[in-house]
Amino acid sequence: MNSILLAKDATSISDPQQIRHIKEILKSKVGDSLCIGEMGGNIGKATITGINHNEILLSNIILDKNPPAKLDLTLILALPRPKVLRRLIMDMTSLGVNKLIIVNSYRSQKSYWQSPLLERIDEFVFEGLQQAIDTVPLEIEFKKRFKPFVEDEFHALLKEQGSAIIAHPYASQSWKNYLDEVKSKTNHTETMPKVLCIGAEGGWIDYEVDLLCQHGCKAVSLGERILRTETVVSVLLGSWLKA
Amino acid sequence: MNSILLAKDATSISDPQQIRHIKEILKSKVGDSLCIGEMGGNIGKATITGINHNEILLSNIILDKNPPAKLDLTLILALPRPKVLRRLIMDMTSLGVNKLIIVNSYRSQKSYWQSPLLERIDEFVFEGLQQAIDTVPLEIEFKKRFKPFVEDEFHALLKEQGSAIIAHPYASQSWKNYLDEVKSKTNHTETMPKVLCIGAEGGWIDYEVDLLCQHGCKAVSLGERILRTETVVSVLLGSWLKA
Repeated sequence: MNSILLAKDATSISDPQQIRHIKEILKSKVGDSLCIGEMGGNIGKATITGINHNEILLSNIILDKNPPAKLDLTLILALPRPKVLRRLIMDMTSLGVNKLIIVNSYRSQKSYWQSPLLERIDEFVFEGLQQAIDTVPLEIEFKKRFKPFVEDEFHALLKEQGSAIIAHPYASQSWKNYLDEVKSKTNHTETMPKVLCIGAEGGWIDYEVDLLCQHGCKAVSLGERILRTETVVSVLLGSWLKA
Repeated sequence: MNSILLAKDATSISDPQQIRHIKEILKSKVGDSLCIGEMGGNIGKATITGINHNEILLSNIILDKNPPAKLDLTLILALPRPKVLRRLIMDMTSLGVNKLIIVNSYRSQKSYWQSPLLERIDEFVFEGLQQAIDTVPLEIEFKKRFKPFVEDEFHALLKEQGSAIIAHPYASQSWKNYLDEVKSKTNHTETMPKVLCIGAEGGWIDYEVDLLCQHGCKAVSLGERILRTETVVSVLLGSWLKA
């Protein structure tokens, strides 16, 4: 938690996790300054004027900085085990993904869609925003039927966005080789793919890779080493970071 | 677990986690083939000839492929919260880090050094190797005193290895900018830094960054977004991957 995210016009903090962080980790006192953000708005600072059991009072609230820019990227993720969802959503949020589309895949078990953790996604986004000193939640959509999603919506998305890649350990082209090609063309940021598809544990099955590729996706491999979904997300998104 | 790592000359599996994985996740039967590796040796295949309660028997063991190459990289990590150690070690192992030096830092609490999880690091390496179909454990050293480590050993390491970078959110040079400079010089892989320093939660303090930089380290920033240690490790290591 590198910033405390507040509702618009809030002048106090009542979220128990935020209070615990301020008291126990930051060990803040009355008079100290806090790094804050306004949900969907700017980031800035506030001064603590009171610390009670279940409320922290603020004054001198100054919200004078824009939140960091989002990446120009839509991430399509096969629904993973709910256990890893929290960290995945946090990381995608903190890395600045603009939009996330969670789709069903052959290796996403049916029970995953019933997990109570799916109801808590907003919390995980909130954690990711506070981690990265951001204020703007990424947009999230769920698509429970893979084939209609690819044939209708993905197809339309690619028409609009240009290029997409799918991470697949058995693709013939390597990610590094693909990146080198992209970078040899004019301006780096303009030619990076706008859509990235990442599988869940066990990866995409051939049918899924083929269907995405038939609709314009390019398959790339990260090499011989098979990585966890969370690791793949961070390894790949690193190439979109502007700084 | 994308491979089953076995001791040299083993012809059966008795590790309960490996047995559970083969029975419950892979749902393998007698006659099926398994992807295996020999600790410190080659990778290959074996055929299951028997499945008992606490043992799985193998035959036709063929170990005909070299494990994936390691990255030419030593990672220096400030001791993190033990809770995140498992995933960090797994990721560094699966991404192919050659050597890991875990050092004390101002923000590493003393209690972290007493954690029982530190005794379990070999297990986490083992998990990372099975994830990435690798067989060669990364070398791990612990340095409980930061200043003598930097002044004596780090200094000598840099003389031998060439260049080092330290990830620091407040550095003036960006990682992308640094990489562009590196890549504009001759062969990419030969000019990548050989040593990478990554802080724990809360990052390095100025004194630590200054001391490392005095001894030849270059500080680089990943931009405005502050990322979790685990995320930083994967984001940065992505640039060392050869595929």
